[in-house]
Amino acid sequence: MSVGVAIIGSGIFAREEHLPAVQAAKDFQLKAVYSRSLKSAQDLASGTTGVDLYSEDSGPGKGYADLLARDDIAAVVIALPILVQPDFIRKALTAGKHVLSEKPIAKDIATARDLVQWYHANIDTRKTLWAVAENFRYMTKFLRTAEEVQKLGRVKNFRVNFHALVSTDSKYFKTAWRQTPGYQGGFILDGGVHVVAALRLILGSNDPVATISAQSCLQQQHLPPLDTVNAVMKTKSGATGVLSLSFGSAFDDSVFEFDCEGGVVALNSDTLTIKGESNELAFDGRGVSREVAVFATTIASGGSVDKRQSPEEALADLEIMEKMLTSGERDGERQTVELQV
Amino acid sequence: MSVGVAIIGSGIFAREEHLPAVQAAKDFQLKAVYSRSLKSAQDLASGTTGVDLYSEDSGPGKGYADLLARDDIAAVVIALPILVQPDFIRKALTAGKHVLSEKPIAKDIATARDLVQWYHANIDTRKTLWAVAENFRYMTKFLRTAEEVQKLGRVKNFRVNFHALVSTDSKYFKTAWRQTPGYQGGFILDGGVHVVAALRLILGSNDPVATISAQSCLQQQHLPPLDTVNAVMKTKSGATGVLSLSFGSAFDDSVFEFDCEGGVVALNSDTLTIKGESNELAFDGRGVSREVAVFATTIASGGSVDKRQSPEEALADLEIMEKMLTSGERDGERQTVELQV
Repeated sequence: MSVGVAIIGSGIFAREEHLPAVQAAKDFQLKAVYSRSLKSAQDLASGTTGVDLYSEDSGPGKGYADLLARDDIAAVVIALPILVQPDFIRKALTAGKHVLSEKPIAKDIATARDLVQWYHANIDTRKTLWAVAENFRYMTKFLRTAEEVQKLGRVKNFRVNFHALVSTDSKYFKTAWRQTPGYQGGFILDGGVHVVAALRLILGSNDPVATISAQSCLQQQHLPPLDTVNAVMKTKSGATGVLSLSFGSAFDDSVFEFDCEGGVVALNSDTLTIKGESNELAFDGRGVSREVAVFATTIASGGSVDKRQSPEEALADLEIMEKMLTSGERDGERQTVELQV
Repeated sequence: MSVGVAIIGSGIFAREEHLPAVQAAKDFQLKAVYSRSLKSAQDLASGTTGVDLYSEDSGPGKGYADLLARDDIAAVVIALPILVQPDFIRKALTAGKHVLSEKPIAKDIATARDLVQWYHANIDTRKTLWAVAENFRYMTKFLRTAEEVQKLGRVKNFRVNFHALVSTDSKYFKTAWRQTPGYQGGFILDGGVHVVAALRLILGSNDPVATISAQSCLQQQHLPPLDTVNAVMKTKSGATGVLSLSFGSAFDDSVFEFDCEGGVVALNSDTLTIKGESNELAFDGRGVSREVAVFATTIASGGSVDKRQSPEEALADLEIMEKMLTSGERDGERQTVELQV
């Protein structure tokens, strides 16, 4: 039997990814959409059938609490602005709904740890599941890279370069909450956790990042508080690495390179090069359909949350991101990383 | 009238670069060669005429002091192992000879500052010149890159990747003093100061590096104490950058990239790309002939040392290198840079 699900939020990612992913998930049946305004809920749901709309301006019986009161809705997929998510997550879990909430888990480590602790203290975590979405952990190219790196023995040195320019014309820039972020890092936090997640996936859980030193700056005046962060890292085993990240850069690249005991593995955009042999990986989506399907199946089968979407993984991503930002604020002061899983 | 000159040292660089450079310099006349062994002095001088040989094993009247006592020798070009150079520099300057000594200026900042202070306190610096060689500051590709970067306004972010593998077959590895270095950093110090010099040249003296955090490691067991260092830097104006350097890497590159207010300038090996337009720069040598010629002309014309070969520039290169190594030893501790010129 399908699990009734609602999509909470109607932004770019809900429209481009969550809606088709929920519709494609065999264990899910979309029952409702919630958005702040009825207009945007309608926009998201247009073309669907049997989907009820909820919003803050729909009048009595049509708010978020009403959606959560429905017995035929067992799960929610939440993709709201970073600052409002924790409240929506708490309410859904309290109502006994399973939650898949978008990354980052929260705006900072303190808020995220509060939320995780609250979840364990107040919710029956075997009965009501909380998962945090991180689609990069479900993308074929990162999974393949991780697999190849782990075949080649210990990583000795690595570098990740992820540079792009979010212009004033970008659809993401046009989101009001992204344009004037009330949280650390702006686009760097929002986009950077994906890159950190990919790096962590590839390094593997046996040799996590242990220390970070970073410098940050603002290159584009329209992207405050900062758009660029460069970090050096050392892992538990002593491997060193560079993570250079910018959303305000004239550099344009997405390169993950690992110098392993057995040779070099490099993922340059969609080209995976293993010990000098290059393979173009066919693009098969951004991983959201797989992560939503895994979440649906977990619920339907009564299983426990897939490690790749556990709050602890999301917290570990956020920790690295925040330590990079903190080090940058403190002019390169070394930060110790402690929450890796 | 030509300036009589001696080459002190008969290693790889003396043979490949200094000898032809001295022979080509119109203001120089090669009078003598000194090496630790007569055999190696003979090897270097073979094919030359009118060149006297000095060594530690040539018997009375044929040692370093005897060479320095000659009135017809006004200058020496010194390329000896890093640890023995300071003593040879002091003796030559004390004997009133102009000195061009190879980089690094010394094994560490403390030794280098001692030497600079000693020079100013004990030598008539207008009469007896001390220059420190750094051929990267005379290489066309770095000069062109510096020129283009400086045309495009402030640098906002930069990255320098310089990776190679010094194998056990390398001619440099086979040098005994390089194989068991008694100084910090090993090949990283020896080769890395060149890369730092190029970076400093391109950034220009108006916006020097101000803080450094770095991580280092040893990737190849034959290259102790370490062969890899990754650093993040911030300049006085707030530009950020990455310097990633290895001589024990399976990565293989030489890339200097600068994201400037007016566009990107990238030097990838010998290809200079300015705002997307690439130009192959013809290789015209490693800069040694130009730096030796400049030194010779300075002496012949009674001028003062070219800024690019001043001990202060060499000290500034060494400072950045040492701060990277120190930060790496201290697991990424931030280092402040203070001796930039």
